[in-house]
Amino acid sequence: MKIVNILESTQPIKSDIRNAYIDFSKMTLSLVAVVTDVIRDGRPVIGYGFNSNGRYGQGGLIRDRFLPRLLDADPATLLDDSGENLDPHKIWAQMMINEKPGGHGERSVAVGTIDMAVWDAVAKIAGKPLYQLLAERYGNGQANRRVFVYAAGGYYYPGKGLEGLQREMSSYLERGYSVVKMKIGGASLSEDCGRIESVLNILGPGQQLAVDANGRFDLATAVDYGRALAQYPLFWYEEAGDPLDYELQARLGEVYPGDG
Amino acid sequence: MKIVNILESTQPIKSDIRNAYIDFSKMTLSLVAVVTDVIRDGRPVIGYGFNSNGRYGQGGLIRDRFLPRLLDADPATLLDDSGENLDPHKIWAQMMINEKPGGHGERSVAVGTIDMAVWDAVAKIAGKPLYQLLAERYGNGQANRRVFVYAAGGYYYPGKGLEGLQREMSSYLERGYSVVKMKIGGASLSEDCGRIESVLNILGPGQQLAVDANGRFDLATAVDYGRALAQYPLFWYEEAGDPLDYELQARLGEVYPGDG
Repeated sequence: MKIVNILESTQPIKSDIRNAYIDFSKMTLSLVAVVTDVIRDGRPVIGYGFNSNGRYGQGGLIRDRFLPRLLDADPATLLDDSGENLDPHKIWAQMMINEKPGGHGERSVAVGTIDMAVWDAVAKIAGKPLYQLLAERYGNGQANRRVFVYAAGGYYYPGKGLEGLQREMSSYLERGYSVVKMKIGGASLSEDCGRIESVLNILGPGQQLAVDANGRFDLATAVDYGRALAQYPLFWYEEAGDPLDYELQARLGEVYPGDG
Repeated sequence: MKIVNILESTQPIKSDIRNAYIDFSKMTLSLVAVVTDVIRDGRPVIGYGFNSNGRYGQGGLIRDRFLPRLLDADPATLLDDSGENLDPHKIWAQMMINEKPGGHGERSVAVGTIDMAVWDAVAKIAGKPLYQLLAERYGNGQANRRVFVYAAGGYYYPGKGLEGLQREMSSYLERGYSVVKMKIGGASLSEDCGRIESVLNILGPGQQLAVDANGRFDLATAVDYGRALAQYPLFWYEEAGDPLDYELQARLGEVYPGDG
């Protein structure tokens, strides 16, 4: 068996939302299809992957570097020991040939999106759900069929008042989510506290709220927010500062040791 | 005045060399030209930039995100207070709009290459060398006309013996370089020691050798190399381990406190 083609398409996922750092008016993502010559139910198996919003589609990197490395490789070197399925680890190593260490920005999006498509193909070729295949390979074979999920929303957008925020969050709760998350840091602290209170007011028993600053704050603002947010029963307070500002992260860890 | 166009061209810089981590057979770089409507000597001022080898050209990112942000911006917002030249800081900020924090890999190459071209245009519009312009803006106005440089080479390539390495290094010394750098970590430690000694043997008074492992080593290997290299009067020992392996970096700093 072999990969016969890999396709990438960069698509707009434009919306009017914004978080504390960026707006999404020009946002894109990459869709990747890994086409194999394996036939299941009379059709070739194709694995699909896509990347999350926020770091844009990576069609340039994928087409310039990562697809050629896979399509130029001897197909046999990308297979598992049985020779009847792809080996995602060998494929990952082949993609990362001639990549310098460090600088895991766009590249991790490009490689990760292809990796997702490869795992999808592997599960389809194996004829079982990917969660079951992963449980068998890396767990005790018993897949946990329940997984914690939450609804991430509460973005800022033009004309959205507190009622609009409450309507949005209610729609998640009505769909069965027990935890909802909203953006903070794109407004003043007092305005954000008003937004948080408006959502806390509509939560029922067993329902909780998390907040996400998307890395916007300097240390002083992060601490000010932390002090103000301590009055609320929040599920978590996410990404207060720049993820690469290690001094901020270390000092925030001293102020708020947390339980992790 | 304004930027009238920005052009990017990704070009191969293929060579047979390799360092400890990657080979350069498919290496590319980006050339960027920032075209302005300012006329000097009867011709439009164009600033040029290019990126270093190792992280590939970034035409995809440049065309998808950074050029459109500059070309779509109100040109007046990219000028300095005089309105007669570009402001590289405003241009940088405009490029980074709607970019998430963290993940400074390919993006820093894309933005930095454009930034280089912008500074080139700024100096040409100002009618003085960039080093003089920088000394006036950020120093005491007196540019230091002497700067330390070294010749980085000593790559591994097929059929290159110790004589080939010596010939290469001699060619740098003959051109006036007083410090030369060679790659290590792409061969065994004993073979690398032989390569190092062969270069040390051809150095004259005031000439020195630095070595670069390009992030290849794990901690144990980095320390083994450090112990072996301590016998030689090296100028420096560069990038022993993965730059994002903070534990390795911290422990290496304990073993070799250095003078920095």
